[in-house]
Amino acid sequence: MIIGLLGPKGTYSQKAANQLDITAQLMFFDDLEEVIESVLSNEVDCGIAPIENSLEGSIGITLDALWEFDINIMGEVIVSIRHCLLSKGRIEDIKVILSHPQALAQCRRFIHTQFKGVKIQTTGSTSHAAKHTSEFPEMAAIASTESARQYGLDILAHDIQDYKENHTRFAVLGREIPPATGHDKTSIIIHLANDRPGALYELLGEFAIRNINLTKIESRPSKMGLGDYLFYIDMEGHQLDTNVQDALNCIINLVDKLKIIGSYRLME
Amino acid sequence: MIIGLLGPKGTYSQKAANQLDITAQLMFFDDLEEVIESVLSNEVDCGIAPIENSLEGSIGITLDALWEFDINIMGEVIVSIRHCLLSKGRIEDIKVILSHPQALAQCRRFIHTQFKGVKIQTTGSTSHAAKHTSEFPEMAAIASTESARQYGLDILAHDIQDYKENHTRFAVLGREIPPATGHDKTSIIIHLANDRPGALYELLGEFAIRNINLTKIESRPSKMGLGDYLFYIDMEGHQLDTNVQDALNCIINLVDKLKIIGSYRLME
Repeated sequence: MIIGLLGPKGTYSQKAANQLDITAQLMFFDDLEEVIESVLSNEVDCGIAPIENSLEGSIGITLDALWEFDINIMGEVIVSIRHCLLSKGRIEDIKVILSHPQALAQCRRFIHTQFKGVKIQTTGSTSHAAKHTSEFPEMAAIASTESARQYGLDILAHDIQDYKENHTRFAVLGREIPPATGHDKTSIIIHLANDRPGALYELLGEFAIRNINLTKIESRPSKMGLGDYLFYIDMEGHQLDTNVQDALNCIINLVDKLKIIGSYRLME
Repeated sequence: MIIGLLGPKGTYSQKAANQLDITAQLMFFDDLEEVIESVLSNEVDCGIAPIENSLEGSIGITLDALWEFDINIMGEVIVSIRHCLLSKGRIEDIKVILSHPQALAQCRRFIHTQFKGVKIQTTGSTSHAAKHTSEFPEMAAIASTESARQYGLDILAHDIQDYKENHTRFAVLGREIPPATGHDKTSIIIHLANDRPGALYELLGEFAIRNINLTKIESRPSKMGLGDYLFYIDMEGHQLDTNVQDALNCIINLVDKLKIIGSYRLME
């Protein structure tokens, strides 16, 4: 199996890929757009993309790709995220902090209280930051302990995310629908035709009367104007289960657009 | 009136403050945390904070502050956002692009296609980026035309956001509840006690049976673990209107926590 993922070596995406299949061959890309392209062009068997972080919420670029392109969520992997401050230099010499925008956001308070005024530079991934930092002692990267090892950096501070509990859910992206396991989750995206009172309520009713548990409901701008949203909904069950199929058949009449973006094994 | 807002001069926040009250005295701060502190300490009469962008969605730091601190939304202002690429130098010499993380995200494709490989540096505001850029011809800022004027920069490209339609909704933050105008909106945050099937459905029913139109529903991580969410809900009506009051009294029994974060005039 070949997995496409965000690189270089040492990213949290690599941790996710290892958790998924330690024997898989990894193909690293520079950004998430390229990971998604590698899935669309069948260059890889599947791609790994972060979809949601427990502190910062959804990863917009992954959610947008699921709406725009013909790809499916085939599975998920939950990775514990513990950021470190890495450098070749000393803590008092740090002039620039580099990392991925998500990691910077997850460490907002740490940076604000300890490094107010230092320059913040974003990179395509946390390990890009670590790799770049290894050349300049006045730079520090926010990245994983694996990145410290990979690029020969010292760990100046451990567990610097603003809340101890920090997990990222990664989606396994592909072109197929895995068979039902009896313990599945289905993800859909809907666009409501209008915002009359109770439209969303009516839609949720189709799940409630069939006792389908919704594990997530999230709105995201449709990009068609302020106040116009897409709803990303996760539910327990497989799209081939009778009750899920029935609910989806009913809501088609209530929405402007419905896109089923995957059924896959539910992780605890 | 004194308004606290993100500075320095030339930010989109300033555009919002001017739209709100062109005669107000403006007090600029370095970051949103300081704007919120200025409201909490009564240093200003109100603060201006971006709450939602039509391309990138909600501004996490503002939503988090509304949950954590004793502040209210007293009004809203909608600002049209048109980003420019500003520099002292020529387009072919640009080595670094600076801006606020939100502006960078709104111009992701522009940067990816036209400036792949250039360094990306984040700043506390778009006008911070413009100000800093004015000293270095190899740098470019993503900011407003007002920032170009303010800091004497050339506009190398206009309207560089990835979608033409780009608006940001700013919240007016304060300590009071404005009186009902007959054309109001109420914002609440709820934390559901558990995720039993239909919990959210039941809650939305209390609004639907009273014909209260929900204009927004958005989930955000509670930071208490993956899968645990706060729901931010906007509805038409004032918290002192009988039907809104009734609905809120009923949902108190369905939720773990309910926080009313404001009633204010609805903008079209």
